[in-house]
Amino acid sequence: MSSQPNDLLSQMRSEALKIFHASLEPINPYEAVRRSVRLDGTRLILGQGDQQKVELDLEEYERIFLVGGGKATAPMARAMEGLLGDRIHKGVINVKYGFTEKLSFTEIIEADHPLPDQNGVEGTKKILDILNSAGDKDLIFSLISGGGSALLPHPAGQISLAEKQAVTRSLLECGASIGEINSIRKHISDTKGGQMARAAFPATTVNLMLSDVVGDRMDVIASGPFVPDTSMFKESWQIIERYGLGDSIPDSVREHLKSGTENKIPDTPKDGDPIFGPVSNFIIGSNILALAAARDEAEQMGYNSLILSSMIEGETRDVARVHTGIAMEVLKTGMPLNPPACIISGGETTVTIQGRGMGGRNQEFCLAAAVYITELPPQVVILSGGTDGNDGPTDAAGGIVDPLTVKRGRDRGLDVSEYLAENDSYHFLEKTGDLLMTGPTNTNVMDVRIVLVR
Amino acid sequence: MSSQPNDLLSQMRSEALKIFHASLEPINPYEAVRRSVRLDGTRLILGQGDQQKVELDLEEYERIFLVGGGKATAPMARAMEGLLGDRIHKGVINVKYGFTEKLSFTEIIEADHPLPDQNGVEGTKKILDILNSAGDKDLIFSLISGGGSALLPHPAGQISLAEKQAVTRSLLECGASIGEINSIRKHISDTKGGQMARAAFPATTVNLMLSDVVGDRMDVIASGPFVPDTSMFKESWQIIERYGLGDSIPDSVREHLKSGTENKIPDTPKDGDPIFGPVSNFIIGSNILALAAARDEAEQMGYNSLILSSMIEGETRDVARVHTGIAMEVLKTGMPLNPPACIISGGETTVTIQGRGMGGRNQEFCLAAAVYITELPPQVVILSGGTDGNDGPTDAAGGIVDPLTVKRGRDRGLDVSEYLAENDSYHFLEKTGDLLMTGPTNTNVMDVRIVLVR
Repeated sequence: MSSQPNDLLSQMRSEALKIFHASLEPINPYEAVRRSVRLDGTRLILGQGDQQKVELDLEEYERIFLVGGGKATAPMARAMEGLLGDRIHKGVINVKYGFTEKLSFTEIIEADHPLPDQNGVEGTKKILDILNSAGDKDLIFSLISGGGSALLPHPAGQISLAEKQAVTRSLLECGASIGEINSIRKHISDTKGGQMARAAFPATTVNLMLSDVVGDRMDVIASGPFVPDTSMFKESWQIIERYGLGDSIPDSVREHLKSGTENKIPDTPKDGDPIFGPVSNFIIGSNILALAAARDEAEQMGYNSLILSSMIEGETRDVARVHTGIAMEVLKTGMPLNPPACIISGGETTVTIQGRGMGGRNQEFCLAAAVYITELPPQVVILSGGTDGNDGPTDAAGGIVDPLTVKRGRDRGLDVSEYLAENDSYHFLEKTGDLLMTGPTNTNVMDVRIVLVR
Repeated sequence: MSSQPNDLLSQMRSEALKIFHASLEPINPYEAVRRSVRLDGTRLILGQGDQQKVELDLEEYERIFLVGGGKATAPMARAMEGLLGDRIHKGVINVKYGFTEKLSFTEIIEADHPLPDQNGVEGTKKILDILNSAGDKDLIFSLISGGGSALLPHPAGQISLAEKQAVTRSLLECGASIGEINSIRKHISDTKGGQMARAAFPATTVNLMLSDVVGDRMDVIASGPFVPDTSMFKESWQIIERYGLGDSIPDSVREHLKSGTENKIPDTPKDGDPIFGPVSNFIIGSNILALAAARDEAEQMGYNSLILSSMIEGETRDVARVHTGIAMEVLKTGMPLNPPACIISGGETTVTIQGRGMGGRNQEFCLAAAVYITELPPQVVILSGGTDGNDGPTDAAGGIVDPLTVKRGRDRGLDVSEYLAENDSYHFLEKTGDLLMTGPTNTNVMDVRIVLVR
């Protein structure tokens, strides 16, 4: 019997799934730590690939501490415990509720995310106590991953957690940019914008980060607790005034920002500050690593492969349309790659929500793409998935679609344009069997998109 | 003296301009015809590259006719006259006002575009007369380019031009899709949807097209006068009813569509209809040809080059953001190409107009891109231009920007976000010296975008 189009599509769908799962391997938090930190006797070698290497002799330090915050921090800590064992003098990490593991030398504190709670504050206090207690003969390992900003909360001065959140809400409502909001958040916190490095000084500090931000800017990942800040108290106050919030923000916030503006309290530490001398920052996992693993897997399967970029942002449907435009060119002229072709991209897109349906940016990407590829031959498969296995407020990681997806929906009485208008990608893809389900992956380096064309 | 960043940028800007101009060469309408049609004695060889070749012996035909419509048709006709000379028995082409040339054997009729006028109708009548008069011993050359749909108007039955336009307007206002509108336009016309092929039958017909549509679908270019149609009278009437226009459309239109639905007049000719037997359709120029020429030029300059796709559509700013995301990855990891890199794309994006400024999709692409690349080093140049030299209702073809564009505007007191909000890309880029000015190019294969990274 000759091969039917559906046979080819189901083979390609399996391949896309395999490529997606391959992309998760290098960003597994445990593996990422093990790959980046090697122990040779008592010598610890840090850094991988092109990164600058740092070597430390554990024997030279009196005490070793382990701290951290983020959704993927528990497996990262497990990897560090595997390397350091009972050399760890004390350890505290903050993780999201449920994202815990059994550890031997490290206290795990579960706290709320994305909105911080009092548990998070208590855990952060313990971490700051450790950092403040460390001296120049001590060594601190810090583990940071996505969610670290909300999971390492510690409002500055007299500010309460509720007051801190009220400020962020007001700024969001009056249309402040994410850069403006982050500038203020760093200045009403005791941890963000390099302030954990100040607490840790003069101890030797190694900060290992799993990046969940586009472009991997270290001052943005978890608001850069160990990284020089570029924003100033003065600017923060100007932002408050620009949006006419001078009178409405809580007294504690106003007084803190005023004190900072008048130089009564130190600003966040800047580049060149000697407190960063003993600090080494390493990104041990990021979106591009996931994309490179996807590419390697696709090439092993015989696909000509291309990584577009790990920094793709923009409105999801339009980004999907660009991807399908590339798939069409592959089919028509063999550009940018001859088929069988695999186009890979990463980053994080935006969905401007206009309906009341359920979905996430990866599912919306797939549903929009499904519409654009409806008239293509059954030789195209498109997958988009969150590397954390969790797309929006759903139990899906994303979707996987082909040129027959819209027809499968129509055969079940579903009008794809209605589902798109309602941002209800989940329920459409659920009924057509096109959801990508992985369960939690315990990591997060944003999204991976895979376009296969045969 | 050492090289300054601005020296590098101005060199890169010249390179981008040179690459853009190189992209225009293969789509010059005169050259495109000369490349696709060769004369060897009395033998005419049609087709280029991978296209199926057709050979004709001019001696075998009694009469040769030349017809056509579109903005670039005059130089195409000049090329045909150069080949055929006084072998042309009669010729009539419709062009846009001002897009004329001195021809010897072909009558040029100037008419309005994008809204058709009575001149266009009169010219089309003459063309239909020629087609209807041609017999099986005659040879017809047809020349079609962008604008051909509006420049070959001939309402069917008793429908007037004004009534035909009123229907299109009503459909646009009630949100009909472009596919639905085209289906109806084909069924209230005597030329569209393969109907000129019906008029030309049984003459041998060669239709040469310069494609201005994404994907080069021959039934879409100028509404496919010589190409099988896929839409039906019945569907057209259903569309009218779907939007509740059954009572409001002009009587002449209602009666024509009803007659068609009741099979009292023939439907547009479909694939397999013997009238298409003597017809050969050739696309002699399209966006991908322009992109390939751009790539060749960039590679000659030493750029590693990549054609993303000639079929890029979507909201302009988001498409721009995808392009800048790729530029960032080139700088950061050398993917998808190591620098010096040239990323090339084509197609036609959309601008959802929200302000009252002046611009076009290419200028808006550049202004949005300029914002996204503001923090990049001065090693990136982005050009976007309409191949017709005319972007929106402006005298510019598009723009050419770099990481200093936003700063140049700020130094002149311009707030880029205000200009973007007003869709006023023209006036921002005019003041920063970042407009792309080419003058009319006499061709049109949509847009070309060039991203250079060093």
